[in-house]
Amino acid sequence: MPNFQQWIAAHQQRFESVLDQLLPAIDIAPQRLHQAMRYSVMDGGKRVRPLLAFAAGELAGANVERVNLAAAAVELIHAYSLVHDDMPCMDDDVLRRGKPTCHVAFNQATALLVGDALQSLAFQLLSEQPLTSDPARQLTMLKLLAVASGSRGMAGGQAFDLASVGKPLVLVELEFMHIHKTGALIRAAIVLGAYCGDRLNEAQIAKLDHFGKCIGLAFQVVDDVLDAEADTATLGKTAGKDADNDKPTYVTLLGVVEAKKMADELHTEALKSLAEFGESARRLREMADFIVMRKF
Amino acid sequence: MPNFQQWIAAHQQRFESVLDQLLPAIDIAPQRLHQAMRYSVMDGGKRVRPLLAFAAGELAGANVERVNLAAAAVELIHAYSLVHDDMPCMDDDVLRRGKPTCHVAFNQATALLVGDALQSLAFQLLSEQPLTSDPARQLTMLKLLAVASGSRGMAGGQAFDLASVGKPLVLVELEFMHIHKTGALIRAAIVLGAYCGDRLNEAQIAKLDHFGKCIGLAFQVVDDVLDAEADTATLGKTAGKDADNDKPTYVTLLGVVEAKKMADELHTEALKSLAEFGESARRLREMADFIVMRKF
Repeated sequence: MPNFQQWIAAHQQRFESVLDQLLPAIDIAPQRLHQAMRYSVMDGGKRVRPLLAFAAGELAGANVERVNLAAAAVELIHAYSLVHDDMPCMDDDVLRRGKPTCHVAFNQATALLVGDALQSLAFQLLSEQPLTSDPARQLTMLKLLAVASGSRGMAGGQAFDLASVGKPLVLVELEFMHIHKTGALIRAAIVLGAYCGDRLNEAQIAKLDHFGKCIGLAFQVVDDVLDAEADTATLGKTAGKDADNDKPTYVTLLGVVEAKKMADELHTEALKSLAEFGESARRLREMADFIVMRKF
Repeated sequence: MPNFQQWIAAHQQRFESVLDQLLPAIDIAPQRLHQAMRYSVMDGGKRVRPLLAFAAGELAGANVERVNLAAAAVELIHAYSLVHDDMPCMDDDVLRRGKPTCHVAFNQATALLVGDALQSLAFQLLSEQPLTSDPARQLTMLKLLAVASGSRGMAGGQAFDLASVGKPLVLVELEFMHIHKTGALIRAAIVLGAYCGDRLNEAQIAKLDHFGKCIGLAFQVVDDVLDAEADTATLGKTAGKDADNDKPTYVTLLGVVEAKKMADELHTEALKSLAEFGESARRLREMADFIVMRKF
């Protein structure tokens, strides 16, 4: 069995070619839109959500070809949210993953359409091929991604985020925001990966969902810590941006030491949800460690 | 049997309460986002796409409760596209359906999220309840809406539109743009309505799709004629905007007389596709007449 670093590297590399095949080719019209969609998705980030989908898929005994599509759907939703989030009317960020953001490299109108079209493509990927033996379960998967993306999920979390700028937020409100903004999609990645396989029952999938909730929050807490500590070059995006924008973070609310402690507690709770799965949840455990202990 | 005006009025009125029930309530958080989503969807327009879905659903013997959801999904995609299209980085329009556009009434960031969340909600509506006796066919419906909305459909058409500002466009290019920008969603409305029923085979649904293609183009040609002729008060949106923005239209390309002739020819071809259905396609025929002969 490959070690975790090898497992990650192999999936990351493979997943880039999956995305390359699933995104519309740049010689298909409208070419500039397709070029901008690829610019915004390819060579981007650590692919944490897809890796979580692959780890959950392995636990559920899923066909990796099916998990590819579920993972890509989640990653396209994530990518579209970054494109829209970076726009001047939102966070107004010019740098993302070490390169100019979409609206800087292209223009705002194109960035708007890139996000819109990536969202549509995500739902297309989840609906055009069989991902489970039961089409009704695939409909459940579509509903799950739609809810996780919408006003009660990711987009809703961003609306909370906007509304909270310059306001004193208590911890429970900050948590509520992040459970929606970042957490919903991380949970969706794990559950969709698991749904591609047949090995787990609903109670077990609920355990994975709780694992996702904890790890999603931990992810955000660590993000805030890294944002407060790292410099722009290491992070690949503008550092200290949220604090500069007067946005509440776990660090501004708790301080670095307490925030790190909170991440550790969430990490422990996440691992507890995996207890019954034994060795077959190894990759999910390693992903939890990776998320909490990452340095970038 | 009610006459066409009665049929339209009854469906329009009923559909407003359908939308009212399907949109998140404004007392659910995030409240301002939900308020803005309702602002952008309710009391809006003629509901041409839903009416086409209802007409096709009647032809296919569909349960109207199911068509409600398909019609609402299409209408939410349409509504989100208007919200994004009106934003300053796109058409920069301040008036829509006689009231301030979403980014004027709220702000740009909210308008961006409203559009994003409405798109998610559309896919949620198509996936959370059974719309056909066969879940696999419902997956086909989801794929159809995703493709019609995405970079090879509506969003792609808008990208063409952006790229064409200030450029001399020949008729075939203008048609290509509109088949995507407006046509894709109109066809989707008709085909999704028909898929909710069991009465039609694939060849018959292809006929309806061709009907939709013709009527979708006719809709745009008539829109350009109305835009060139009407004043702002009658239209409920800023008149002459496209011509002012140096965007090619059927009127700038063909002149009013030829554009009207083109609409008539498309109308005739649309009706031809319905020939085999006899009296049961009556509402679709009336919708075609309505679209071509409308004055607003």
